[in-house]
Amino acid sequence: MTVSPLAPAAFPDLPVIDGVTFAAAQAGVKYKNRTDVMLALLAPGSTITGVFTRSATRSAPVLDCQTKLGVGDGAAAILVNSGNSNAFTGKAGTGSVDAICNAVAAATGIDPARVFTASTGVIGEPLPHDRIVAKIEELKAAQAATTMADAARAIMTTDTFPKGATQTVTIGGKPVKIAGIAKGSGMIAPDMATMLVYIFTDAKIAFQPLQDMLARLTNRTFNNITVDSDTSTSDSLMLAATGTSGVDVTGNTAFEDALHAVMLDLSHQVVRDGEGATKFVTINVTGAVSDADARLVAMATANSPLVKTAIAGEDPNWGRIVMAVGKSGAQADRDTLTIKLGDLVLARDGWRAPEYSEDKCAAYMKGQEIDINVDLGLGDGTSTVWTCDLTHQYITINADYRS
Amino acid sequence: MTVSPLAPAAFPDLPVIDGVTFAAAQAGVKYKNRTDVMLALLAPGSTITGVFTRSATRSAPVLDCQTKLGVGDGAAAILVNSGNSNAFTGKAGTGSVDAICNAVAAATGIDPARVFTASTGVIGEPLPHDRIVAKIEELKAAQAATTMADAARAIMTTDTFPKGATQTVTIGGKPVKIAGIAKGSGMIAPDMATMLVYIFTDAKIAFQPLQDMLARLTNRTFNNITVDSDTSTSDSLMLAATGTSGVDVTGNTAFEDALHAVMLDLSHQVVRDGEGATKFVTINVTGAVSDADARLVAMATANSPLVKTAIAGEDPNWGRIVMAVGKSGAQADRDTLTIKLGDLVLARDGWRAPEYSEDKCAAYMKGQEIDINVDLGLGDGTSTVWTCDLTHQYITINADYRS
Repeated sequence: MTVSPLAPAAFPDLPVIDGVTFAAAQAGVKYKNRTDVMLALLAPGSTITGVFTRSATRSAPVLDCQTKLGVGDGAAAILVNSGNSNAFTGKAGTGSVDAICNAVAAATGIDPARVFTASTGVIGEPLPHDRIVAKIEELKAAQAATTMADAARAIMTTDTFPKGATQTVTIGGKPVKIAGIAKGSGMIAPDMATMLVYIFTDAKIAFQPLQDMLARLTNRTFNNITVDSDTSTSDSLMLAATGTSGVDVTGNTAFEDALHAVMLDLSHQVVRDGEGATKFVTINVTGAVSDADARLVAMATANSPLVKTAIAGEDPNWGRIVMAVGKSGAQADRDTLTIKLGDLVLARDGWRAPEYSEDKCAAYMKGQEIDINVDLGLGDGTSTVWTCDLTHQYITINADYRS
Repeated sequence: MTVSPLAPAAFPDLPVIDGVTFAAAQAGVKYKNRTDVMLALLAPGSTITGVFTRSATRSAPVLDCQTKLGVGDGAAAILVNSGNSNAFTGKAGTGSVDAICNAVAAATGIDPARVFTASTGVIGEPLPHDRIVAKIEELKAAQAATTMADAARAIMTTDTFPKGATQTVTIGGKPVKIAGIAKGSGMIAPDMATMLVYIFTDAKIAFQPLQDMLARLTNRTFNNITVDSDTSTSDSLMLAATGTSGVDVTGNTAFEDALHAVMLDLSHQVVRDGEGATKFVTINVTGAVSDADARLVAMATANSPLVKTAIAGEDPNWGRIVMAVGKSGAQADRDTLTIKLGDLVLARDGWRAPEYSEDKCAAYMKGQEIDINVDLGLGDGTSTVWTCDLTHQYITINADYRS
């Protein structure tokens, strides 16, 4: 698999976050000759928050993590494997989660209620958890603060590049560091697009305000990206604050802005690694009667196969955007709608704009970054959604190879 | 464009429906060397009903037709052009509709309030209605009861075959005939998937009961098909009853069943001509807490790019169906879910079924007709939706050619 043309130039230098260490190992869950399991250990007092897929068929590790949020304040652990998602695996799936959590607890002395797991990869196959359990001592022995990049590689499935992002914000003269890793949304049949994100900070903050901040920011980042409209059974985003900086960030907007920047960066990297993606597309919707209506329009546009194939074909086919607005279910009025590609006006006043230039728009579509700006002209509602184009390579990845 | 591999063997012999005549002509709206406009004339007393796209950006002809339903009982006319959809054409679009309706009225003596039009093709371009108006005398002179097949060809855009269906039902010893034509859902950029359907019967029935029957049957046929989840600005389905059989079908279930058969046949033909389609897929959902929930699951499955590419790849990838159920928003329980391919059980009791055979399922997926049967195990709600697979040819049709 060649690296996505939309990949960042390099993996960022991630800072050491005091209070968290990492290790990666080769457990052979499915892949050979690569790391496929990572263990992060968190100092006592760390605050652990998370948001998860809302799928009605979510995986055993997701269900387990959800019960553990906000419980206890001792040391904590996060173990993630790739190659098998432990989803739709019935009671055996729960057994595998318990076996791994108990083994981590036994090796480290951490309360099993503070051990979080995630699995990503093939669905409906029993997870060979013994292979993971057999590596826990090795993972414990190899812990280091500097191996977060190795962890990013261990959680990849068919990602074409590892994903990391970092920000440092100075609060009261002291630096507070944030660093995160993500995987998604590559796929090999029969895997499905899954997304895992782990973010660490040395900020000090209690569970509820951090959980609230995470949920708020997720709605402006990861919940507003889409590659193919399909929702994973395993999507997980966890944020851990070790408190080792000594800086209390409760209600601190500079911290929230920095965390937002990390989450936005990682979420965009997930889109940039969308299957077959050749264009990174930003859809800005303004002028809706509500933010919810704006999001309906943005998501309908981002998920439209006709819009996505037009972008792949570098075709400024604004009729398809009109179609997507119309089908979205949002309140819309043909005569107040304005559609732009970047700054180029396509449609206005219920009609193709007089200044429309096919040549200029076609030239714009040849770029790698495409902005679609839709103003509904009805109110103050806004939404921004990020997506990629729909190409032959998407079909090749998802149809041409048998599982 | 080669004919879809899913096309019927031949266009059916459509019967003469007394009280309606047809003609087709070459107006050169966009296409050259083919018919692109059809005019149907209906006898006085004909009942005209219709259902239309719910898009918020629907076309000028759709908006015009909607105001005319249920008005008057004199002679009537339906004029349809292909090559230009007269959608997102502002006030000029309304002017074009009026110009055509007035010209038909002037030539035929029909009340303009009983002249219905439809346009299908490129969006956002002014409709050169003068070319259509110039053909109205020719269309009037060429009217014949036997040229419904010609009308079916004139309304095609990038359809790979013309679509027709017919049923005759005997009521009180007298035959009542139903015959219909449809176009959809081929596309040339920048056209979008559009669907037009015209059904004629010599049954006798008043506006409201026929309109109610049409709406009821549409929810079991055309509203349950999907090729790519994109909703046209022009979708129109009109049903005209000339009453010339003298048989009153008000409340007659045999007539409703026959009309259902015609609508189901035409709706399936639209799917069979879906862009790039190589498989015809029936998704049956049972056991939902409501019919609405069942439809959510069926539509989420039918519109999932991952399910559709798995079908294209002949991959019995049931994990993707589990994913689609999970994301649908319907109430679902992993442990009561049963998924089958035809009669082959894939998943049951929250786990891959013990009798699952990869070989048998892979063999099933090689067929041209695929049935996906999902039982949610929760209630009595059911829904059936029809779709096709998502192939390289879909991308080729919609991305590879510039408008």
